Amino acid sequence: MQTEDEVRDIRGYLAAQAERVEAALQSVIPAAWRVNETLREAAMYSLNAGGKRLRPILVLAAAEAVGGDAAAEARALPFALAVEMVHTYSLVHDDLPAMDNDDYRRGLPTNHKVYGEAMAILAGDGLLTHAFHVAAQAPALGVPADRALVVVSELSRFAGLAGMVGGQADDMQGEQGITSFEQLEHIHLHKTSDLIAFSLRAGGHAAGATERQLEALERFGRNVGLAFQIHDDVLDVSGDEAKLGKPKGSDERQGKVTYPYLIGLEESERRVRQLTEEAIQAVLSAGLPKPERLVQLARHMMARDY
Amino acid sequence: MQTEDEVRDIRGYLAAQAERVEAALQSVIPAAWRVNETLREAAMYSLNAGGKRLRPILVLAAAEAVGGDAAAEARALPFALAVEMVHTYSLVHDDLPAMDNDDYRRGLPTNHKVYGEAMAILAGDGLLTHAFHVAAQAPALGVPADRALVVVSELSRFAGLAGMVGGQADDMQGEQGITSFEQLEHIHLHKTSDLIAFSLRAGGHAAGATERQLEALERFGRNVGLAFQIHDDVLDVSGDEAKLGKPKGSDERQGKVTYPYLIGLEESERRVRQLTEEAIQAVLSAGLPKPERLVQLARHMMARDY
Repeated sequence: MQTEDEVRDIRGYLAAQAERVEAALQSVIPAAWRVNETLREAAMYSLNAGGKRLRPILVLAAAEAVGGDAAAEARALPFALAVEMVHTYSLVHDDLPAMDNDDYRRGLPTNHKVYGEAMAILAGDGLLTHAFHVAAQAPALGVPADRALVVVSELSRFAGLAGMVGGQADDMQGEQGITSFEQLEHIHLHKTSDLIAFSLRAGGHAAGATERQLEALERFGRNVGLAFQIHDDVLDVSGDEAKLGKPKGSDERQGKVTYPYLIGLEESERRVRQLTEEAIQAVLSAGLPKPERLVQLARHMMARDY
Repeated sequence: MQTEDEVRDIRGYLAAQAERVEAALQSVIPAAWRVNETLREAAMYSLNAGGKRLRPILVLAAAEAVGGDAAAEARALPFALAVEMVHTYSLVHDDLPAMDNDDYRRGLPTNHKVYGEAMAILAGDGLLTHAFHVAAQAPALGVPADRALVVVSELSRFAGLAGMVGGQADDMQGEQGITSFEQLEHIHLHKTSDLIAFSLRAGGHAAGATERQLEALERFGRNVGLAFQIHDDVLDVSGDEAKLGKPKGSDERQGKVTYPYLIGLEESERRVRQLTEEAIQAVLSAGLPKPERLVQLARHMMARDY
């Protein structure tokens, strides 16, 4: 459990880090680049559409855990921005009429509702492509080129055909036919956890993590990613509408197959706790100089009511 | 002009290189990767749908020009495959109903006609993402990591918001309103030439090109890319239907603004010759050890009737 002081501390940390990421995103497309104006606007619209900024914050926290100081964290910023761009593109494409056909996200009209389908497709393509550009600039902040190249390779693996994009294909095909816990977990492991696992590894790479540390960070990310998804499902059943900012029970109304639906509410909550503890154990036993923030983040994410 | 022997030689070269690229594309998605089966199939469907393989061939030819031997060319293969994947994803997304809404490409049903819109969007996203993975493997073939990272950075710049994706946004918005030569040229410079210019630079990087050589290669690519586009427009007016594999005059029927429409057939042909000569001069005056193949390729592309 978290004390009130801890909650205040972690909330302050999350707000400050989100602000830092959002400030950096404003100049992520170089002002000097000649970019089609509508395309630039469409890309920035979705980058600025809010969200918890969870992935970039995890990149920074992982770098701090491994490097032990603010300098290590600063070197990880390009990777933090890159992962947020990849996450954003995936939402833009996911909302398209041919995909989930969503008109609103986080209370705002989705990209294609504002800019049209063609521009939304291009804005997504542009954000995805540009993520690699931003990641590749990490050596300017002191990350060795060979490490930065490994991060590029991992970003494409965790976000690509065998990772997030593959998970979305599984999800799309499975929408009617998910009947087992294993199927559901397989989809979320790729659709959500892969990019979170990448975030932890990327932060580790920026701080020069060893192979053993990278594995521990990845395990932390994978477990926290799954716990995050299950907790979301749980909140949709038992959460507080005012804090969630959306009506309860929307998953059930949409016929979505969720963890509570498949294994029950109590077992879902038990699984969130178990995954979170495993995540915490992974980073506590990896000999990291400063794992505290990651531990706090894992505890907080499990306890959140929003 | 080309002699008959030269034509035979360059045709043999093009066929052999295309075959080499196509063979390598078969294992570009590692067999060991667990990938959603339909997604893998959809990605491979478009990778295998033919085309001239012009961009990857130019990557390989640039590496040969700079390195002077087959070893330099071999090191460039990952970049050749990456650029073909980026080109392929752009065609898959370009053909979508929300974009150009094409049912056929190169005589085959387009990706979304076979696999549905959602899967076509994901296959495009997956191909784009995977291109960076393949490019990042170049150090395994002997390309230094810092060079490979520069290629990643350039791929994302030339293919991204300020490059190909930007050109597509310009094109989409301009469809009704192109009235000047400058507008048309601006669109093609980004939509087509940027990725070709990248191809030349990437081959150069693989062979350790100097800054001056890279600039000459880029100029070659930019000019050849534009000449290629203008020549396509010319062939649509004056070409041989049997050799083109499609009916003549389709640009005019679709109301497409082309070079012959804006500046006339004769001036268009003159411009193709001029751009080609400038391209050839660029590589001949850059002190490259083996520029002959690039010169041959430029001459051949200007003379082609297909």
